[in-house]
Amino acid sequence: MIIVKVGGSLGIDYDALCRDIAALYKAGEKLILVHGGSAETNRVAEALGHPPRFITSPSGYTSRFTDRETIEIFEMVYCGKMNKGIVERLQRLGVNAVGLSGLDGRVFEGKHKDSVRSVENGKVKLLRGDHTGTVEKVNTHLIELLLDNGYLPVLTPPASSYEGVAINVDGDRAAAALATALKAHTLMMLSNVPGLLREYPNEDSLIPFIPATDVESYMGFAQDRMKKKVLGAAEAVAGGVGRVIFGDARIENPVSAALSGKGTVVADKANAAD
Amino acid sequence: MIIVKVGGSLGIDYDALCRDIAALYKAGEKLILVHGGSAETNRVAEALGHPPRFITSPSGYTSRFTDRETIEIFEMVYCGKMNKGIVERLQRLGVNAVGLSGLDGRVFEGKHKDSVRSVENGKVKLLRGDHTGTVEKVNTHLIELLLDNGYLPVLTPPASSYEGVAINVDGDRAAAALATALKAHTLMMLSNVPGLLREYPNEDSLIPFIPATDVESYMGFAQDRMKKKVLGAAEAVAGGVGRVIFGDARIENPVSAALSGKGTVVADKANAAD
Repeated sequence: MIIVKVGGSLGIDYDALCRDIAALYKAGEKLILVHGGSAETNRVAEALGHPPRFITSPSGYTSRFTDRETIEIFEMVYCGKMNKGIVERLQRLGVNAVGLSGLDGRVFEGKHKDSVRSVENGKVKLLRGDHTGTVEKVNTHLIELLLDNGYLPVLTPPASSYEGVAINVDGDRAAAALATALKAHTLMMLSNVPGLLREYPNEDSLIPFIPATDVESYMGFAQDRMKKKVLGAAEAVAGGVGRVIFGDARIENPVSAALSGKGTVVADKANAAD
Repeated sequence: MIIVKVGGSLGIDYDALCRDIAALYKAGEKLILVHGGSAETNRVAEALGHPPRFITSPSGYTSRFTDRETIEIFEMVYCGKMNKGIVERLQRLGVNAVGLSGLDGRVFEGKHKDSVRSVENGKVKLLRGDHTGTVEKVNTHLIELLLDNGYLPVLTPPASSYEGVAINVDGDRAAAALATALKAHTLMMLSNVPGLLREYPNEDSLIPFIPATDVESYMGFAQDRMKKKVLGAAEAVAGGVGRVIFGDARIENPVSAALSGKGTVVADKANAAD
């Protein structure tokens, strides 16, 4: 089984992605697609007069501050426009896709963090009313039911808190938790870069291979949103996923290209070309 | 099995609706919820600078002209904000809800009508680029899979065309087609009126009972959006659904109230209090 996570940044070619996924699905491959929608959420939030607010944690991670109004805009874009746009593309290609958020069947569950620490002008502030969390539990029953019946699940944040409240979670780490729970042989994280770069943004400095036992030591090369991908990759390979591939979602056949070794492969040496 | 269709008009109490549905679900009733989102779609479309455009057909039905940008806004509101808002409410109440559009698993399928006739200033004009249609086929497999596994499906337009294109369909008639396909004993259509009124908007003029064989002759009492509900009811009872109830979604326990006979019941005399 292959879990394909595709980001929500600018430059991603969703038509090419869906064509490639449709070809693999028709060849009998079991696939799950997980997607984001951050760039479009920013655009819609601006247009609706509730512009996005990003915060930086004391440990250096950037995330969206998600009040109630923001989680509703987030759901409009992630679960509405993006998710149904992808499902429609796949249905047009003859793939029986089913789009779900982490709320549906509580596929993605985790703890609701109502308050978050933010570094502003060198000072740490505590912000309340946040709808965020991290996926701690993947309820695979619904996903397995869909896969066993020939459907292709298309998953997206938000997740559900243990109390059933919608929470914004990182999609890369959600995909890593899903790959771990389903014991996938491959987790792919596609975005608008060719993989992990030694000298970001120089695309010629691609790191082709990272030994599974040594992921943490490559964290220093990750910029911005790549940090969560490397963190997710470390969690996935530690959790038993065969390999994680960071690939390019701007090209024709992005999934097949990554499967054939393009991008950055994180694996035990034995699994690198699995 | 009970199919509950709830409209997207102003004044509907979704919290009360979900509490009532949760109680029935926990008592072992098999339920499916179908919802709309028209009022909120109008609000968001205005805010995004793409205001809604309504057209009136030569036969007097009002519908939304749905170009590509409109269907995306429609999906944001129906499949994003409304659908996930309802799923979240149900999950918080301990109901394992799963939200789907008609695109997912092609639950609702029909013909894509690209052009539509509109009466403007007494003249009939032909408009192109419309993403509308009518549900002609209900693919029940995914819904039955969910019901058999304890999930409560929460369904919403759009539907899928036979080519996999997203099409705006009337939710009342989609619910009627679903009830027919699943041989439901009860289809309930809840909105912001107490039922079919003999003298709209006088709420004291409620019509309590309509014989199944005589629905068409009551069409004259239906105003605006109620027309599609009466049409859907006629289709459902003709298709074998035991009874259709037009009920009030602004009250506490709207589903239980309708089940106990409040509202307008459309049925054979024998099934009226089924």
